[in-house]
Amino acid sequence: MEIMQVAGSIVCTQRVGGLDHCNLRLLRTPKGKLSVAVDPVGASPGNWVFTASGSAARFACPNPDVLTDLTIAGIIDFWEPDG
Amino acid sequence: MEIMQVAGSIVCTQRVGGLDHCNLRLLRTPKGKLSVAVDPVGASPGNWVFTASGSAARFACPNPDVLTDLTIAGIIDFWEPDG
Amino acid sequence: MEIMQVAGSIVCTQRVGGLDHCNLRLLRTPKGKLSVAVDPVGASPGNWVFTASGSAARFACPNPDVLTDLTIAGIIDFWEPDG
Amino acid sequence: MEIMQVAGSIVCTQRVGGLDHCNLRLLRTPKGKLSVAVDPVGASPGNWVFTASGSAARFACPNPDVLTDLTIAGIIDFWEPDG
Amino acid sequence: MEIMQVAGSIVCTQRVGGLDHCNLRLLRTPKGKLSVAVDPVGASPGNWVFTASGSAARFACPNPDVLTDLTIAGIIDFWEPDG
Repeated sequence: MEIMQVAGSIVCTQRVGGLDHCNLRLLRTPKGKLSVAVDPVGASPGNWVFTASGSAARFACPNPDVLTDLTIAGIIDFWEPDG
Repeated sequence: MEIMQVAGSIVCTQRVGGLDHCNLRLLRTPKGKLSVAVDPVGASPGNWVFTASGSAARFACPNPDVLTDLTIAGIIDFWEPDG
Repeated sequence: MEIMQVAGSIVCTQRVGGLDHCNLRLLRTPKGKLSVAVDPVGASPGNWVFTASGSAARFACPNPDVLTDLTIAGIIDFWEPDG
Repeated sequence: MEIMQVAGSIVCTQRVGGLDHCNLRLLRTPKGKLSVAVDPVGASPGNWVFTASGSAARFACPNPDVLTDLTIAGIIDFWEPDG
Repeated sequence: MEIMQVAGSIVCTQRVGGLDHCNLRLLRTPKGKLSVAVDPVGASPGNWVFTASGSAARFACPNPDVLTDLTIAGIIDFWEPDG
């Protein structure tokens, strides 16, 4: 699962049917690449999150019929280096 | 989901059966890479769109049997930076 | 779907069972990377094609049990810039 | 399957339902890219592991309903150059 | 399908259940990146092979329950430039 930061929200009136009830967040990778993800956990601006991609992205939504290939799976509180 | 811009249309007479009734659009990533996507939302030239890839691309078509791995999922009106 | 050019054919006598009756073509991306694809449309040398990857690659074959993750989905005649 | 090194653990209180009982490890590729994986094998700090991605990542968990796209599949003891 | 060269074998005693009876080979891309693949065809050291990834990787194994996302699909004897 990829590590990304919430960069904003997407406004999008014309979309395919299967995305009806979803919040779309703009995410940024550490290298600056932007992508769009469904957000079922309610991430806040600036949050670091990790994302599920591929078919896992659909199952990560409350409704598994949502048409997404990228979904926020959790908000990272902090991480601990080992050892 | 990736963010891309509509760059043109593809004319393609010889194709596999499962792509029969689909509009094929040429998309360009912000870095300039070109790819081909099925367009069920009717994007216009120059539109910024976001795309579903993998198995989600098939479900994003009105007919889920369409043989695509990249489908336009929505047209981006604008995006709002958080905070 | 990715845009690639037919660069040659692969000769391969030792292969897994699920690839028995398939033509294997060598494809080259615009950046020069080579990969191997199943060719159900009969592309000719030098043709520009677009490819289906992932699970879509299997469904793009006449026999969906073919063990491929990359299949030629169509031959590009030409493309039209929008506007 | 990708080769990565265990770099730490992720603490994450807000997450999607399907990740309830999983250890989340921070992995680092040889090029330094970080990602998050489910760890069913109990890797130790500094271990080199290989990972299953995509739908295989879910099947690699004791419970195949786990919502992951990256799972540690094994710990590398050592590798032998051929010949 | 990607083109890679057999670089060695992986020794790995601690692994997930679904990889029990598989040979794990170390593969190298033309750019030098290493990854781990299941080998059902019996590739030899130095062989150039092509690999199936994603869900196709599982079906390419004699037992489709094997937990792999990369499987050697064939050994390349040689390739012929077109035209």
